[in-house]
Amino acid sequence: MMRVGIDIGGTKTQAVALADSGEIAASVTLPTMRGEDAVLATTTSSVVALAATAGRELGEFSSIGIGIPGHVDRVGGRVRNAVNLGVRSLELGPALRERFGIPVEIDNDVTAAAAGAAHLMSLSGTVAFLNLGTGLAAGIVVDGVAWRGQAGAAGEIGHLPVDPHGLECPCGQRGCLETIASGAGLRRAWPAGGAHPGRGLVRAMESGDADARRAFEGLVSGAAGCVRILALSIDPQTIVIGGGLSRLGEPLRQALGATLREWSGTSPFIADLKLPERVQFLPENTPAAAVGAALVSRT
Amino acid sequence: MMRVGIDIGGTKTQAVALADSGEIAASVTLPTMRGEDAVLATTTSSVVALAATAGRELGEFSSIGIGIPGHVDRVGGRVRNAVNLGVRSLELGPALRERFGIPVEIDNDVTAAAAGAAHLMSLSGTVAFLNLGTGLAAGIVVDGVAWRGQAGAAGEIGHLPVDPHGLECPCGQRGCLETIASGAGLRRAWPAGGAHPGRGLVRAMESGDADARRAFEGLVSGAAGCVRILALSIDPQTIVIGGGLSRLGEPLRQALGATLREWSGTSPFIADLKLPERVQFLPENTPAAAVGAALVSRT
Ligand SMILES: [Zn+2]
Ligand SMILES: [Zn+2]
Repeated sequence: MMRVGIDIGGTKTQAVALADSGEIAASVTLPTMRGEDAVLATTTSSVVALAATAGRELGEFSSIGIGIPGHVDRVGGRVRNAVNLGVRSLELGPALRERFGIPVEIDNDVTAAAAGAAHLMSLSGTVAFLNLGTGLAAGIVVDGVAWRGQAGAAGEIGHLPVDPHGLECPCGQRGCLETIASGAGLRRAWPAGGAHPGRGLVRAMESGDADARRAFEGLVSGAAGCVRILALSIDPQTIVIGGGLSRLGEPLRQALGATLREWSGTSPFIADLKLPERVQFLPENTPAAAVGAALVSRT
Repeated sequence: MMRVGIDIGGTKTQAVALADSGEIAASVTLPTMRGEDAVLATTTSSVVALAATAGRELGEFSSIGIGIPGHVDRVGGRVRNAVNLGVRSLELGPALRERFGIPVEIDNDVTAAAAGAAHLMSLSGTVAFLNLGTGLAAGIVVDGVAWRGQAGAAGEIGHLPVDPHGLECPCGQRGCLETIASGAGLRRAWPAGGAHPGRGLVRAMESGDADARRAFEGLVSGAAGCVRILALSIDPQTIVIGGGLSRLGEPLRQALGATLREWSGTSPFIADLKLPERVQFLPENTPAAAVGAALVSRT
């Protein structure tokens, strides 16, 4: 038997079939289309395509786990107000359950990514996955089991204010980390960067664009702030950095390391936490959320 | 058999004998005296006095758990640099083990208090104990088991900076929550309050002392900030507020509730967290750290 995991993102839907051994037996990527009907159709197609790609029957799939952005109704399986999928309300879990006759669980994509990253990177203990995406949040797993918290808010550190004079945040607070360390934050700090500011940011900065540099510095200090918050609250073994902006790659990695070392230099208390040693970047093109969705559908 | 728990604080040493049922069978309080020899002598005396008070033999005690401030060497049982006990280095665990012939475990007092509060207040799930003491930190227990983190730093939220223009903190950072929401913070904000500023703070504030009011407001907003950080990182069911400053009582409780409700009013995101409903104050004169020390010595 195999477990299916599906990551429904704003631009693409990625599905994997996970063998009992934990290996990825097959994977499929489809473009995500907007709206209730399109999301259901694409998700269904991805499962069918996965069986074909793996050379298996649909009956050999034992469960489906789905990761989507935002708050999810894990038990009922309803997706609500998934803005970047164009979905107001979709009974995704029940519909897939009826179509394939197997258990379906829907989870937050960042939580799923944490489980997938821990599995794929062979990380034990407590792992936090810091998602530098359009938004900013962390997912937490403890020995492979998702840590969701009492209100499903565990790891929602993007809406912690760190500057009383910072920017207003759509959440209604001021100075949230998300206003500086996210795609949405970059767009505000560097409007010239357009809808996907991460793509041209490093080049613009290197060619002397002061707004681009300021935006990058905000991103770095915000990400470093997230690492510090995670270490002084949950205190995980490993903090994995992923999400669209993690593709800034080496410049981000170096600047983040430099900031954490600088903080360690001015504070022995922070130095004791050994923050630089705990940070790892998710390797590029790792289907962490899809794999994690397959895994957490069973925990 | 009974378990012994001892809370060695800066002014008093409190010991309890916990029956197998979890009930407090006897308790003893002695003044703490400073220095290695005095701390060992007082701790030893408290165990002997506990047996006498309970009308039991020493041989009926099965374990000793000790809570002390600061970082502790749980395995080796050595106490180092416990400034407010006047202790530079003391092999407290080994000495007590030799004297009484039973297992001894030394733990951080705030972690112990979290375990004790969860037990005494019958709180299940994840409980955070926010200690408003000379310093500021939270202890975490999950279903009665201490959550210490990878580096023993879980819950050390007092050293999270929340204002880039805030006060310098002895930890080497700037704007830490501890600079406003702790006894040390109160002393800086309201020097007229002397060494124990909590005692006269409310009266001074009510009679128009502007510094006292500002200090109180800093304490309240810092404590509320801690509640928000705990909810958006660990997301516990219950946040218990204790420590010396929690004895400010009703004025603190009301001001904290008002601040959390005000934040909920401006942010639907924060409102969803239902923060005011999660906060409870530790009832006065509850030996949470001593009871918790007895409990965690077995986990
Ligand atoms: Zn926010
Ligand atoms: Zn500090």
